[in-house]
Amino acid sequence: MTKSKPLVLHMNPVRYAHESWAKMNDIAEVVFIKEYSREQFIEDLHGKFNNVIAIGRGYLTKELVGPFDEELISHFPPSLKYIAHQGAGYDQVSVSALTEKNILLSHCPDVINNSTADTNLYLLLGAMRNFEAGRRRLYDGKWPTGGFGAGAKVGWCPKQKILGIIGMGGIGQAFRDRAVPLGFQKIVYYNRKRLPKGEEKDSQYISSLDELVKVADVISVNCPLNKSTYHLIDASLIGKMKFGVIIVNTARGSVIDEEALVENLKSGKVAAAGLDVFENEPDVSKDLLDLPNVLALPHMGTHAIQTVYEMEQSVVDNIYEGLVSNTMITIVPEQKNLFS
Amino acid sequence: MTKSKPLVLHMNPVRYAHESWAKMNDIAEVVFIKEYSREQFIEDLHGKFNNVIAIGRGYLTKELVGPFDEELISHFPPSLKYIAHQGAGYDQVSVSALTEKNILLSHCPDVINNSTADTNLYLLLGAMRNFEAGRRRLYDGKWPTGGFGAGAKVGWCPKQKILGIIGMGGIGQAFRDRAVPLGFQKIVYYNRKRLPKGEEKDSQYISSLDELVKVADVISVNCPLNKSTYHLIDASLIGKMKFGVIIVNTARGSVIDEEALVENLKSGKVAAAGLDVFENEPDVSKDLLDLPNVLALPHMGTHAIQTVYEMEQSVVDNIYEGLVSNTMITIVPEQKNLFS
Repeated sequence: MTKSKPLVLHMNPVRYAHESWAKMNDIAEVVFIKEYSREQFIEDLHGKFNNVIAIGRGYLTKELVGPFDEELISHFPPSLKYIAHQGAGYDQVSVSALTEKNILLSHCPDVINNSTADTNLYLLLGAMRNFEAGRRRLYDGKWPTGGFGAGAKVGWCPKQKILGIIGMGGIGQAFRDRAVPLGFQKIVYYNRKRLPKGEEKDSQYISSLDELVKVADVISVNCPLNKSTYHLIDASLIGKMKFGVIIVNTARGSVIDEEALVENLKSGKVAAAGLDVFENEPDVSKDLLDLPNVLALPHMGTHAIQTVYEMEQSVVDNIYEGLVSNTMITIVPEQKNLFS
Repeated sequence: MTKSKPLVLHMNPVRYAHESWAKMNDIAEVVFIKEYSREQFIEDLHGKFNNVIAIGRGYLTKELVGPFDEELISHFPPSLKYIAHQGAGYDQVSVSALTEKNILLSHCPDVINNSTADTNLYLLLGAMRNFEAGRRRLYDGKWPTGGFGAGAKVGWCPKQKILGIIGMGGIGQAFRDRAVPLGFQKIVYYNRKRLPKGEEKDSQYISSLDELVKVADVISVNCPLNKSTYHLIDASLIGKMKFGVIIVNTARGSVIDEEALVENLKSGKVAAAGLDVFENEPDVSKDLLDLPNVLALPHMGTHAIQTVYEMEQSVVDNIYEGLVSNTMITIVPEQKNLFS
């Protein structure tokens, strides 16, 4: 009788890293989950998958089985040691519940920086220059009569404007580097802790979020979603911002109180917003989409071939490392010092 | 009897530089033209405006009186010495016909660089990442069912791609500076003449346009429109490009043979295009706008408050210089050595 190979579940579509997953088959039995329900998953965790050692998951896994919350994790069998999340933000997973069961969680903290920062840059430029309003008027046939920019409101140049970045991790820094050549008057940032001086480059630290939003003409949201950043940008904080502020968000929808944002976009307090993420995506409020001062994308921050490939590869690499070395490569920060 | 002040016509809407035009009134009689026809203009050039010394014009002047071509210029009275064009590209004006009549032409070569380069960057990012396709699917309600990016084709990262810039003047260089942090594998450029080494920065010169289009994955059009660049990008040149090339144009529509572009966008030879300018604007072919791989804006390259203000100021300054010093500040290159 041959020893059976360890069981690995992968609950996210594979688009590019087929070869890497095929190699994984040499050392593991891999089951790819395409259609599933939370009920069936829980049943299988106590049944045919009760010896699973590792699970690969991604943003769309939530649509299959819901979040990896305390309740779901309570059903995870003792065999399960490794969860690899395909993405930088792992707000769909309860890290504390995993930690309690000695399950490691990995994510993809670096490979997504550049393409997310590129998306952030696109939304910043579009929101500052009213490109979406111009585009709508063009497609509505209002150019011949509308004059300059088909009648869209004239936009802003970065010159004489202050850019404020909230969250100066990998994405914030990659975005900052792209914003520098635009020639802002100043770039300021708020972060839980100040960057080492050599990494601040052309940005200046502001130690209070309130102070940052008071001075910034354009605000870029680049922090992760967690308990302390949920609705970080709410009616009260928007109230402290400059009249006519521009807000860009490629982080997570729930960092902003969307209802408050819509109200302030309608009043003009917020002049424009560039949004790649939404509170209840993939459902997006029609109220928001109808506003001509909103430039919206359907969460395309990492929607780029090389980036998707590298994220998929990161999931394979982390699970492989678990199987052969009993650890993972890019463990989430909360767990970094928990296991040796 | 007081000496009458010289007559200045301004044939473009003034949006921001009202104060500067008011000052001009101290030394000139300024007539602001709002509604006009070519016939009436010609009649007035022989009548009540037959002593005009300077004319301010802009891109929209063509919609009032047509181009400043040989025919129209033949009616200009001997008193006319200065034309100030509000914009960088002066393809609506026959420089040779003006030169023959010893009339100076100024344009705005530098103040538009940054905002045009910003627009170029927006279109580049959008075209590379299929953001317009994603946006359409989002607005068509296809996100809940479409999966990643609402089902839009996955885009490209700059990494491992070669950017080719055609035309390395002020806009080309400002755009190059903005493209550098995106991390292209290489940036190459074609220009009538090679830049001084210190100005090449992270770009490499290619002395043949054919060679450039053979190696470039993304092509940015940043040259002026003139006789030698009309339909520079035609079916034959597109034929030499890589399959799946991306083209961005913020220069002038007629630098590209639009019919050939549409055909190649349909076949997939050109994977995507980001266009701020069109051959027959403000009329844009529905055929082009309907393509989901086209990201289009209604000529918004300089549609930014600071830029419009600086262009308007440039017109005032150039005319003022004509009136008080018998020369202009930013004379077009073709005339730079003609008058001392």
